[in-house]
This record gives sequence, structure tokens and C-alpha cells, in this order.
Amino acid sequence: MVMDVKTASGLFCTLILLGAVLIPTSVLAQASVLSNAVQVKENMVASVPRPAQEAEVQNKLEALAKKTGRRPNILLLVVDDLGWGDPGCYGGGEAIGAATPNIDFLAQEGLKLTSCYSQPTCTPTRSAITLGRLPVRTGLYRPILAGDKLTQNPWDTETSLPTILSEAGYNTLLVGKWHVGEAVGMRPQDIGFDEYYGYYRAQKEYVQAYDKRRYPDLVLDEEKYAKYLSIEQSQGLEHGFKNGETKLVKAIRSIDDMANADRLLKEFTVKKLSELAKDDQPFFLQHSFMKPHADNHPPKDFEGASASKYPFKDAVVEIDAYVGEFIKVLERTGQLENTLVFFTSDNGPQTDGWPDGGYTPFRGAKGTGWEGGIRIPGVAYWKGMIAPGQVSDGLFDLMDIFNTSLHLAGALDSMPTDVYIDGIDQTAFLLADGGESMRDKIFVWSQTDFLAIRMYEYKEHFKVVTTDRTFLNIDMATTDDLGLSPWVFNLYVDPKEQYPVGHRLNPWVASLAAEAKAHAATFKKYPPKKIGL
Amino acid sequence: MVMDVKTASGLFCTLILLGAVLIPTSVLAQASVLSNAVQVKENMVASVPRPAQEAEVQNKLEALAKKTGRRPNILLLVVDDLGWGDPGCYGGGEAIGAATPNIDFLAQEGLKLTSCYSQPTCTPTRSAITLGRLPVRTGLYRPILAGDKLTQNPWDTETSLPTILSEAGYNTLLVGKWHVGEAVGMRPQDIGFDEYYGYYRAQKEYVQAYDKRRYPDLVLDEEKYAKYLSIEQSQGLEHGFKNGETKLVKAIRSIDDMANADRLLKEFTVKKLSELAKDDQPFFLQHSFMKPHADNHPPKDFEGASASKYPFKDAVVEIDAYVGEFIKVLERTGQLENTLVFFTSDNGPQTDGWPDGGYTPFRGAKGTGWEGGIRIPGVAYWKGMIAPGQVSDGLFDLMDIFNTSLHLAGALDSMPTDVYIDGIDQTAFLLADGGESMRDKIFVWSQTDFLAIRMYEYKEHFKVVTTDRTFLNIDMATTDDLGLSPWVFNLYVDPKEQYPVGHRLNPWVASLAAEAKAHAATFKKYPPKKIGL
Repeated sequence: MVMDVKTASGLFCTLILLGAVLIPTSVLAQASVLSNAVQVKENMVASVPRPAQEAEVQNKLEALAKKTGRRPNILLLVVDDLGWGDPGCYGGGEAIGAATPNIDFLAQEGLKLTSCYSQPTCTPTRSAITLGRLPVRTGLYRPILAGDKLTQNPWDTETSLPTILSEAGYNTLLVGKWHVGEAVGMRPQDIGFDEYYGYYRAQKEYVQAYDKRRYPDLVLDEEKYAKYLSIEQSQGLEHGFKNGETKLVKAIRSIDDMANADRLLKEFTVKKLSELAKDDQPFFLQHSFMKPHADNHPPKDFEGASASKYPFKDAVVEIDAYVGEFIKVLERTGQLENTLVFFTSDNGPQTDGWPDGGYTPFRGAKGTGWEGGIRIPGVAYWKGMIAPGQVSDGLFDLMDIFNTSLHLAGALDSMPTDVYIDGIDQTAFLLADGGESMRDKIFVWSQTDFLAIRMYEYKEHFKVVTTDRTFLNIDMATTDDLGLSPWVFNLYVDPKEQYPVGHRLNPWVASLAAEAKAHAATFKKYPPKKIGL
Repeated sequence: MVMDVKTASGLFCTLILLGAVLIPTSVLAQASVLSNAVQVKENMVASVPRPAQEAEVQNKLEALAKKTGRRPNILLLVVDDLGWGDPGCYGGGEAIGAATPNIDFLAQEGLKLTSCYSQPTCTPTRSAITLGRLPVRTGLYRPILAGDKLTQNPWDTETSLPTILSEAGYNTLLVGKWHVGEAVGMRPQDIGFDEYYGYYRAQKEYVQAYDKRRYPDLVLDEEKYAKYLSIEQSQGLEHGFKNGETKLVKAIRSIDDMANADRLLKEFTVKKLSELAKDDQPFFLQHSFMKPHADNHPPKDFEGASASKYPFKDAVVEIDAYVGEFIKVLERTGQLENTLVFFTSDNGPQTDGWPDGGYTPFRGAKGTGWEGGIRIPGVAYWKGMIAPGQVSDGLFDLMDIFNTSLHLAGALDSMPTDVYIDGIDQTAFLLADGGESMRDKIFVWSQTDFLAIRMYEYKEHFKVVTTDRTFLNIDMATTDDLGLSPWVFNLYVDPKEQYPVGHRLNPWVASLAAEAKAHAATFKKYPPKKIGL
């Protein structure tokens, strides 16, 4: 299968679809004139060197280590399907009927990233954070669904962040949603986390068995319902340990059970954060909220808690309250100054469930390569280490959490060398006063389609995910090849990607295409895995 | 001419277009079940009583007066064509290539209004602030253009804010853009301001005579150019005094002259704020920026000052810097704690000049009744009187500045009684900790068309301004009557007004229609003026 990527300047480069992935016919040794990035290792994406900034931050970290006598903790907060525009500090909050004072506090007292990127959907983002690798490389490029039969366990040949951190002496915990496999061998406690406490799947996938108003064709049809119940899957809250036992702690047996899920998770994390304060080892704790992924059901004390009163909005208020509790317990236990807190979402808002859904000012939503699908909130807060009131439009990919966490743990030497790493160590970006990003490109993929590149404020689309409804993106979406030329947008003057300017950007179109080719070339040397998804 | 306003529930109420304004066939004495507003005076729009909040704020104001021994100052900062989304605190700033640290500071240390409304265009908003009245009542319902011949001077029969404040012992100054008439009798110094220093019209209307790249058909055609020069209009920066002389201080004779206009205005305001600190009288100073209304030309030291480098973005950076200077001079002269600073824009972004234009996450832009046209930044900052970090989605109409200023000046008794007042005294909303708005409705007009109502998070459109281009709103716009029913949006779950929910909102549709009828009824008792625009 052959596909043409045409540029506005008339340049044609032929890319061959090999397996499921684009590979250019000739491998370019170097990328474009536009980039300042340097490739230091063959298996790692090029990054922009910032020696002065790196030195400044290294001093800062060493001074802290001297003071605390230990390595820093990492608390990673991942919300499910929260849009860029949902928190108040991104223009949402009060304006859309769900105030987020605690998230706003983190932004105000820390670093607000305005160009933080995820993958377009859940499983891809979560696996990408855990592996520092693009989902198309690992095979985990779409959400794992009930009944999926994989031809191999992708984790068998991968080295995960918690594996490395555990070996480096960290307590590694995942609390909450996983959604990257619930078969034995694919669970968090199997792939490196010391401890797991959470739900393997998304909210909807538990609650639909009990929601006869929304899923009457499933719940009220006896035959179908019996078939549904026969699917082998976890029934609720699981608690498991690396090389140890895993138990179902509490099954989801009603809508109310699901409504209370985030509270149980929060209580666990609060307790753990207290306990971990007394531990000799530092921690990496990823708290992955279940909410506000559809379908949302508020617990009693959050019903109508938002100005809007919609369940999604109440869920945002609930999450925000729990974020506040986490910060308080870190403060109470004296860990605030030794813990990097990073708050983010796994993808743009899912709008299929509209009107009960999230908000992005950008075009598109979850499942697309438009900014609405992949540009998400990203707030880094670290009292004493990140100066208050920092805002940056520097590029950050959630995969960068992989490399950055290794740096903070002093474990950069354990970086995998046998696979290609797409993450970049952004420690210096996050911690320097007025820090600048070490990343100058975002590669946008959806499943096995290479959709677009963002570089500086420019974004060049090769394929676009479109829909014939304004709101309902995933369920009504198609992926389209583009016509005469790639669509190029200047995101500063056209944040909503409405008006392509390829012709105005002639000087850069070839550069962006060259970057795309160089990126595609990495798949030749490091072939993508196929796991049967 | 008869027009039907149909509601989704099947209710039909016939409105008659009398003159140019909608009048209902029967006047309803009271509005809808949905509203908590109370009409206190026949000639004033109904407002929501909040006695506890009002008492709290009155005490606060009295305590301040005791401390300072004088009434507070008011510094009103009006930017030209800045979109809701342009400042960083509203989700723009760094994210769109033009950081606004000083505006963000005001929001962070004061009250950020997320539902602050203007009129859809310039002249209407500026006159509405100055008179507390809807433009359709005063006849000033569209921008005054070069060559317009009015049949009467609307100001002759109006009582302006600066007139009342001057009589109440305030120094009243307008610095910058006016655009509500430059004939004698219509200039700021004729209609109540003690002093005026500024440019009567918009930037474009000065610079187009010198811009042969953008207006070659005007500038390079000798005959047309001669005709253009024969239009009687001010040539640049004017300095005038009430009952005194007015002089052209500096003519615009080149693009560079226009580029420097905002700097000259800033220098004047900085000097004045210093002088006024020594004056016995308090002040009302409205500083109306020329930028970033098209066409923008940065002064040398702001060229490329924004990350985006586009002239509009450089203009935003320049404005932000001057806002910072104003705050500094207030601080240096000891006036910060006795001055209400209110920062806003006169309407949504003008996008005709795209890519050199502003940003709103909402639908539409300047000239429309969509949120993009009329929802604008609104930040109130008053050190010691407004608690830091306040955010409110309470409704605020820029006309409320009229009533609120009278309150602060102790001049509420001078409120006009012979005309209808659409503004509401929002002093208590702005100054109370966690204050709630006294306004529960926004009436949206464009010229003589009654377009929509917003009430709570609901917005009901009777007519919409549409365009066949995504971006270019004004130049390609038509005003359309709606079809089967009004379009009703829930702005919390649908901030972009994409998906009408009239049918879901049956319980409120009749209430919103009743509000519209009650509003239209005010035009029967207080007929609108016609001035020949």
C-alpha cells in the first residue's frame, strides 16, 4: 500500500505503509533546518540542549537532596477525559459551571503548561506514560475492550517506569484506573508497580450492567445480559501486590457503588501518603481518577455540588476537592517540599456523552488529532522547587514523564537501550525559573495513523479525524486523507485550527515534512510491535 | 411589520416592530417565574436584592472613607476589540503567543468576571457605559463612520456619567479612543468630561490614509485620495477641556505616528495619575486604548515583542505593559487602596483582519450576538477592598459601570429619572467577598435587532448573526430570523453555542420569552430615540 504525503510547495515524498506503520522510502539522517533538537542517542528522540538551564536545575536538586537526605517523591495525578478547558486556570471553572479552586491553586503556585499533549485516547496515553514510548511502537495503540484477545502480552518485552523506579529503590504505587490490560501479566502489579489499588477499566464499563435507563437493551434483555455477565472481567476494586496476592476488595454491584469509587481511591491515597512519609524509600504514586469519564454518577455529597449540576461537572468538583486533600496531606506530613506533583488528563474531553461531557476551546475532542483531542491540562507543582506563577507554552508530551521521573530518581542510566524512547527528560524545563522546553516537536498518532506534527506554533496535518456532528466525535468519526496538501495551522493566530495557512508558511512546509520523514524512519530501525489489538 | 417570536412549547407571542424596535402587543407588569429580580423604579431595569451583601459592602466603603477622608477614584481601562480569550487569565496569553502578566496580576489579586458583557460593537458599548442605557434607546446603536450626518445630537437629551460625576465633585477625564461622535457637541469634552486627550476614531481610520500596502485603491488613486482628504474629520491627537479650548496636539501623518499613539496616551495617563494624587478631588479616569483594533502597527520597541510576533499580539503585549505601568504609578502615589481599577474590552475580537486578530473560545466574534461577540474580559481590582483570587460567573453588563460609579461617588441621587436606565448598581457584587451579582439577565441587541437573552446559564436567541466564513464575521454577516423555535443553549455544558436544547428546557422557555416581552415593553413607555444613524 502506497500513500502520498504532498506538501504545499509541490514536493512529493512517497511513504510506504509497512505493516500498519508509515515508513519513508529513504531514511534521512537529519531532520529539518527549523529544529534545534539534537539526537544524542540512536534510540532516543532528539531534544533541545539547554546546558545553562540544566546546570541551574541540577544545583537546585542537589541542594534539596542535601537538605532532605533523600530523593524526591513523585505524585502523578491523571484525570480521565478532562478537557483542556475544564479547569478554571485554563479558562473553564466558574465560566462553565464547575469551579476548580484546588487545581487552580496548583497552577497559581506552580507551572501551568499550555501546550501539554497526550495521546487521543486512554490506553495509549497510559501506556505511553508508563513506557516513554509511542503506543504505535508497543502495540497498545487503542483502548483495550472487554473480550479483546491479544496475540502476545506487550509488557513482556517492555521496561516500565515503575520497574525501573522500584529497582532504583522507590515505592511504586498505582491507585485508580488502569485500562492497559487486566489479564494476569498485564495488571499494574505485574508490570512493575509494587502495589495496585483500583479499577482496571473505565467507569462506564462497570456501571452499564446496572444502568437500565441508559443501557436498557443490555440490562433489560435477559439473554444479552447473561452473555454480558459471562465475559471474564474484574468486578470492581482490586488490591494487588507485585509477586503477591490480588484480591477483589469491593465489587461494583450498583450505580451507587460506582458513584463512591473515587472516594475509596482518594481515601486509600490519603492513607498511603501518610504512611509513605514514614518510609525510608521515596515514592512514585500515580493516582488515576475514574471520573469524569462517562458515565458519571456523583456520590450523595457531591450531587449538585457544581453550579451547573450536571454529573460531569459535579465529578470535576469532586476531583478538585480530592486534589486539595492530597496537597493537604503532603503538607501535614512534611512532604510538600520534596514531592513533584503533576496534574493532567489522559486525553481531551469525550463528547459522545454530551451534554454530560467536558470542554475544550479547541477543535475536536477525544479520539481526534485536533488540539481538542490531545492538548490537555498539565500543571507541575513543587513547593520551593518550582517558582509560583510560572506559565509556559513550551511543548510537553506526557511521555516526558517517563524520562523526567528517571532523572529525579537518579535512574537515567537504567533507560532502556533496546527500544526506541519517545519521551524527553524535561526536568530542567519544569524546575528552572522561566524554564524552556527541551522538546520542539509533538508527533500526533491515532492508532496506526500518523496524523500530524506540531513544531513551535505550527501544526501540519497529514490526516484528520473528522465527524459529521459538531459534538459527537468518536462515535461518528472517520479518518480522512487530506487533499491537495497537508493542512498547516498557526496555533497562535488560529488556536481552533479553522483556517489552513500552508501557502503562507511555504518556508516551513518542507521542514515539517522532513521532520515527519525522519520520525517515520525510526520505525525502520525499531519496528513496531503487533499484539493483536 | 409584524414578527412572530415562537417558543418551543408552542406559545406564540406577536411582537410588532414599531419604528425600528420590537414592542409587544401587551405590556406585562411582571416578568417570569425564573427571575429573582425586583423592579424598584419604573425607569430602571429590575435587579436582584442582596441586602446582607449590600450592608457588608456599605460598611467596608464607610470604613475606607473614614481612613482616606475622600471618595474613591475610578480607573476604567477599555481595550479595543480584545477577545474574552486573549488574556492569559482567560485561557489565552502564553497559549496563543501573547503573554499578559499584568492583566493576569489584576485577575489574580482581584475579581475575574467570567460573564461580563458588552455590546457587539464599539460605539454602542462606549455610549452604553457613559449613559447606562442600551444603545437602541439612545440611537447610538452602530459605529459612527466618517461622513455620517445625524439628524440630532443624541447627547443633547442624555445625562452622562462624567456630567453627574463632575457635578458631584469628581475630576473626569477621558484618555484615548472615543468613537461616539467628533462633531462639536458630541466630543468627550462636550458631553461631560472635564478633559479629553485622545483620538476620536479607531486606529484603522487614521492609518489607512498612509498604508499603501493595505489600502492601495485609496492611497494610490489620486482622485479618490483627494476625496478622502476632503472628509471633515480630526487629524489625530486632540486635547480639549470642558467649556474650553480643543487643540490638535499631534497629527497622524504616517504609520509610525499611529504606532506610537498608545504610548503617548499612556504617558499622558501616567502623568495625570501622578498629578491627580495631589488633587483635593477624586477622579474618574477612563483610559481607552487604541490598540489592538485593526490595523495594528507596533512601535519599534514592541515589534516582535510577543511570542507570536503578529502585530495584534505585539499590541496585546504593549497594552499589558501599560496596564502594569498604571498600577505602578497608583502604587507609587499611594492611590492603590483608594482606586477601583476595572479592565475590560469594548466587544469581542474583530476577526475580519485575520490572521491579525483576537481570540475567543466562543462562537462568533465582534458584531454578533453570539458569546464571541459580546462576552469580554472584565477584571475588577482594588487593593484591600476586593479580596485576591475572586472569580465569579455572575452576570455583569458594562452598562453597570454607570450605576456602580454613581454609587462609589455618592451620587446615586443624581440618577436620571426621565429616561430608562439599563445599568444596575453592582458595587456590592464587585466588593463583597464571594459577592453575587445583582443582575440576572443580559439583553442582547445588535443595532435595532433584539437578538437574545441570557439568564442564568441559559441563552435564548430570537435572531442570530451568521456568516458564511468561519472567521470573517462582520464583513460577511447576515442577521437571520430563527426557524421553528428560538435557539436555547445551556452555556455551562455548551459554551460554544453549538447545540440548541430548547426542547430539554421546556420549563424555562416560556419564562425566557416572558422576560423578552417585559423587556420589549419598556420601549413603549420610554420610546427609543432616532438620530439618523
